[in-house]
Amino acid sequence: MTAPAALGFIGIGLMGRPMALRLLDAGHRLTVWNRSRDKLAPVLARGATAADTPAAVARAADVVMICVTDQRSVRDVLFGADGVAAGGAPGKVVVDFSSIAPAAAREYAARLEAECGMGLVDAPVSGGVPGAEKGTLAIMAGGRAEHVDRVRPLIAHIAQRFTRMGDSGAGQATKLCNQVIVGSLLPVLAEAVRLAEAAGVDAAMLPEALRGGWADSIPLQVFAPRMAARAWSPPLGAADTMLKDLDNALALAREGGIELPMLRDAAQRYRLLSERGLGGEDPAALIRLLGRD
Amino acid sequence: MTAPAALGFIGIGLMGRPMALRLLDAGHRLTVWNRSRDKLAPVLARGATAADTPAAVARAADVVMICVTDQRSVRDVLFGADGVAAGGAPGKVVVDFSSIAPAAAREYAARLEAECGMGLVDAPVSGGVPGAEKGTLAIMAGGRAEHVDRVRPLIAHIAQRFTRMGDSGAGQATKLCNQVIVGSLLPVLAEAVRLAEAAGVDAAMLPEALRGGWADSIPLQVFAPRMAARAWSPPLGAADTMLKDLDNALALAREGGIELPMLRDAAQRYRLLSERGLGGEDPAALIRLLGRD
Repeated sequence: MTAPAALGFIGIGLMGRPMALRLLDAGHRLTVWNRSRDKLAPVLARGATAADTPAAVARAADVVMICVTDQRSVRDVLFGADGVAAGGAPGKVVVDFSSIAPAAAREYAARLEAECGMGLVDAPVSGGVPGAEKGTLAIMAGGRAEHVDRVRPLIAHIAQRFTRMGDSGAGQATKLCNQVIVGSLLPVLAEAVRLAEAAGVDAAMLPEALRGGWADSIPLQVFAPRMAARAWSPPLGAADTMLKDLDNALALAREGGIELPMLRDAAQRYRLLSERGLGGEDPAALIRLLGRD
Repeated sequence: MTAPAALGFIGIGLMGRPMALRLLDAGHRLTVWNRSRDKLAPVLARGATAADTPAAVARAADVVMICVTDQRSVRDVLFGADGVAAGGAPGKVVVDFSSIAPAAAREYAARLEAECGMGLVDAPVSGGVPGAEKGTLAIMAGGRAEHVDRVRPLIAHIAQRFTRMGDSGAGQATKLCNQVIVGSLLPVLAEAVRLAEAAGVDAAMLPEALRGGWADSIPLQVFAPRMAARAWSPPLGAADTMLKDLDNALALAREGGIELPMLRDAAQRYRLLSERGLGGEDPAALIRLLGRD
């Protein structure tokens, strides 16, 4: 499957566009669909073919990739009128890059196989738009090993890391673990910055002083300076989006019968931000909950 | 000051020994003192000279380095009978690698200058015994710029990073910020591991799946596998030691009139561990608070 394959790509948005462009640049034929058709222009200009429905994408392609904003969109694209299931066939595989609940990923995989015989790999991504543009995304996959292995050569064009974590839903569960760590670390970083300030230390120097050590991380390097400067524009993401992920993680914990107190407290910080009307702000705004301004 | 200097080193323990050995290997003359004299053997074998008291070290050396276990030991070494202050003189500088409260560092600096005219740089280290052996420690310094700059060429033999964060106490305050981040991250990592398990994902794969991304850090790579395996021996440190640091950070926050809820909750996790008689265990044992065993 290193030879050009017949691919489909559904969802040509902020993330989907650079991913689709990289696949086109690698020489693959791409049939594309997007709810707003005008978003297709950049990929059509590079040789992609527009389809009228997700079902038409599934008929034209052996591997259908999906990158949409939320669970409802995934469901509509797969199982709505003229959805992927209506055009799919055994032997074909869907790779869903969207972030949705693990239980939904399991349900959709079972339903897709029952309705049309297609496989489904849940493959949420980490790395944002820059990672999608550079092909350096990290992708956590769930699904049958044969399906994951089959799409691996294609994914190599868009990700530097593609790890099968288990059966359907395992990719989504791993993405939530990722969000638990990042989402809890951000309010901790706000507290470290605030403590430095309160102690008379120049908090803007923390990332440099701690670089390469146990306290270092990409969030320290990216967010601590923004927190110290009280500057969160242009935004790197919305606090409310993180809150949605943390609430999904809390729901997953409840399903598993476990309590995660640090996560619960972190989610509470984002909720406070939201209640103050700051949920649309960058998470760097978390430092505003700690006084001084 | 790149020429060999007359140095003193007080506290030849787990951390102090490799630091002293690196300074000897770099060609510096070293006068040493340790409360238990038998610990001196490895450095005497490499050419160091033993002194009978900290005061004698201060008389023999231009720069006196201290690396002891706690605040009381620092105070005794500096201001006890035959302490450094009794042998010090203007123009000489003390570098204290120990981790103590920022307020104590400020007080000791003022008192040392008043009693004998010596400067004091607070210079707590991060990187542990491996960092001390390899000379890759990160050191956060507080004190007068002239004192920090004077010892910088010597520190280059034992640390890869030596950052002046401000006046006396700023190094200790920065070390506490470091501990706030690491100490709060560890219980978060335990929760991410536990969530993966509850969702049926192989938690031992998390470090590899998340490597290089926003959730990555040295603690993820080092501690998540230990947590997943419920294996914390040989210990990388004691939970109670971290709790002491987090309580010092909470005290510093109170002095500054700020509340740090994530830090308070993290400290509470270590306190629970301690109450269950597990305070001497490695912090990886935090995962035992989350059920299953």
